[in-house]
Amino acid sequence: MGVEFVKGHGTENDFVILPDLDGTLELTDERVRALCDRSRGIGADGVLRVVPGKLLPDLPSGVDGDAWFMDYRNADGSIAEMCGNGVRVFANYLVFAGLAEVGEFVVGTRAGDRPVVVHPDGQVTVQMGPARVFGESTATLHGREFPGVCVDVGNPHLVCVTEQDLAGLDLTTPPAYDPAVYPNGVNVEFVADLGPGALRMRVHERGVGETRSCGTGTVAVLAGYLHLHGRQSGQSTVDVPGGRVVITVEPGASTLTGPAVLVASGELSADWWAAAAR
Amino acid sequence: MGVEFVKGHGTENDFVILPDLDGTLELTDERVRALCDRSRGIGADGVLRVVPGKLLPDLPSGVDGDAWFMDYRNADGSIAEMCGNGVRVFANYLVFAGLAEVGEFVVGTRAGDRPVVVHPDGQVTVQMGPARVFGESTATLHGREFPGVCVDVGNPHLVCVTEQDLAGLDLTTPPAYDPAVYPNGVNVEFVADLGPGALRMRVHERGVGETRSCGTGTVAVLAGYLHLHGRQSGQSTVDVPGGRVVITVEPGASTLTGPAVLVASGELSADWWAAAAR
Repeated sequence: MGVEFVKGHGTENDFVILPDLDGTLELTDERVRALCDRSRGIGADGVLRVVPGKLLPDLPSGVDGDAWFMDYRNADGSIAEMCGNGVRVFANYLVFAGLAEVGEFVVGTRAGDRPVVVHPDGQVTVQMGPARVFGESTATLHGREFPGVCVDVGNPHLVCVTEQDLAGLDLTTPPAYDPAVYPNGVNVEFVADLGPGALRMRVHERGVGETRSCGTGTVAVLAGYLHLHGRQSGQSTVDVPGGRVVITVEPGASTLTGPAVLVASGELSADWWAAAAR
Repeated sequence: MGVEFVKGHGTENDFVILPDLDGTLELTDERVRALCDRSRGIGADGVLRVVPGKLLPDLPSGVDGDAWFMDYRNADGSIAEMCGNGVRVFANYLVFAGLAEVGEFVVGTRAGDRPVVVHPDGQVTVQMGPARVFGESTATLHGREFPGVCVDVGNPHLVCVTEQDLAGLDLTTPPAYDPAVYPNGVNVEFVADLGPGALRMRVHERGVGETRSCGTGTVAVLAGYLHLHGRQSGQSTVDVPGGRVVITVEPGASTLTGPAVLVASGELSADWWAAAAR
């Protein structure tokens, strides 16, 4: 009698997945907040509603109505366009639930159709779109300056390649940046070069703080690193605190390949779901 | 094919419940930590394994082998004796699962048998044992002194009745206390007197920090409050950040009545459970 759910994570960016195959689920902001509350609910960074695109009243133009649409909500109830970690978990769920098959298919998102590949081992590859280098700037952390590369991956990043020992950086306070370059704020990545094809990063996300993982950030990091070496194309592992992903960058396109873990599935208590609407 | 679980909370102290009716579940420390991890697992303050007392190899002497035993583990995998919030959630689960009926029954714990009453509305009353006042002392918070009453409820408390506006207190740093009175540390409660039979508290738990709720703390608060008014018996609501409980105190005994919410039930992924053992 309850509402079905699955809990999963991609490099420790975690989600509650709600299958809504007939588009009738009343997913209010209050319910999203209750679901994501880590004491009163299940606990997650966001909610991924699984709905046929054609049943979405406001399906973005150009998005395939025959694909499964990822209705992504942030933990505060607000709507988000895309999430490189969320879409991997979403794609893996579709295969788990028998709604898609291992291999390539399309996921509809508010940022447009996203081709994904679910590999037989559960890793998922996502097309992340172009990563555009647009200059150089500086981040300042506790008075120390870090030179960086400015990269746009649909959202703004500042990629600072620095020493190997990232553990020594205190990211509990936000790095300062040049507001003339980043009028809407910036995600700042601190990057260690571990040798050919191997990078490690920590990230401070604007409005959030340090996180375990940032999909667009891993793409920005490789694009910025390649730029510093006079290259436009390449592939690398990128280690984030929550795990390891593999990134490819070429002019006008990038991919992110990484794990997606489904932890548990079950039903929300009907009483709890009713109370969560208030 | 997965492992059954339920997620629930008592005044926002949250737990993963694992039914283990035949005593065969391999609940390692690693699995407890993975379950309680709020990004990689389900996320909780602790795990409550449900096992028949007679199947426990190390059943504490004097505990009823015919009762359901609450095998309580902290989020770090260590063993805990009792938890006033956990036992309410545990009792409510037994009724939900058809393992007990609404009304009075006994739950076995490492602190001994605990009589509980599950009420028809889902509230649960727990016998919390004696609350013993053993002196007066002082907590110091950011240079300000708070006079308090020393109360033992199986663990040590310092109950400081202060102004109505508890929201103004900064509990991000631990209150200082007299180590001669509390050689093993202390849980410090800051209490507002809201009028007859109505108290509000915030609590700093030793080794943890501020929490949303502390079962023994709510009992200590009423015992300390009564002591300041020259009384040994009484009843009061106690509002904690995570909700409201009702406490009774009399010489040699106390009870805690409060909510227990079952949020969801389901199965852990078998792959996840296997990986969590490592």
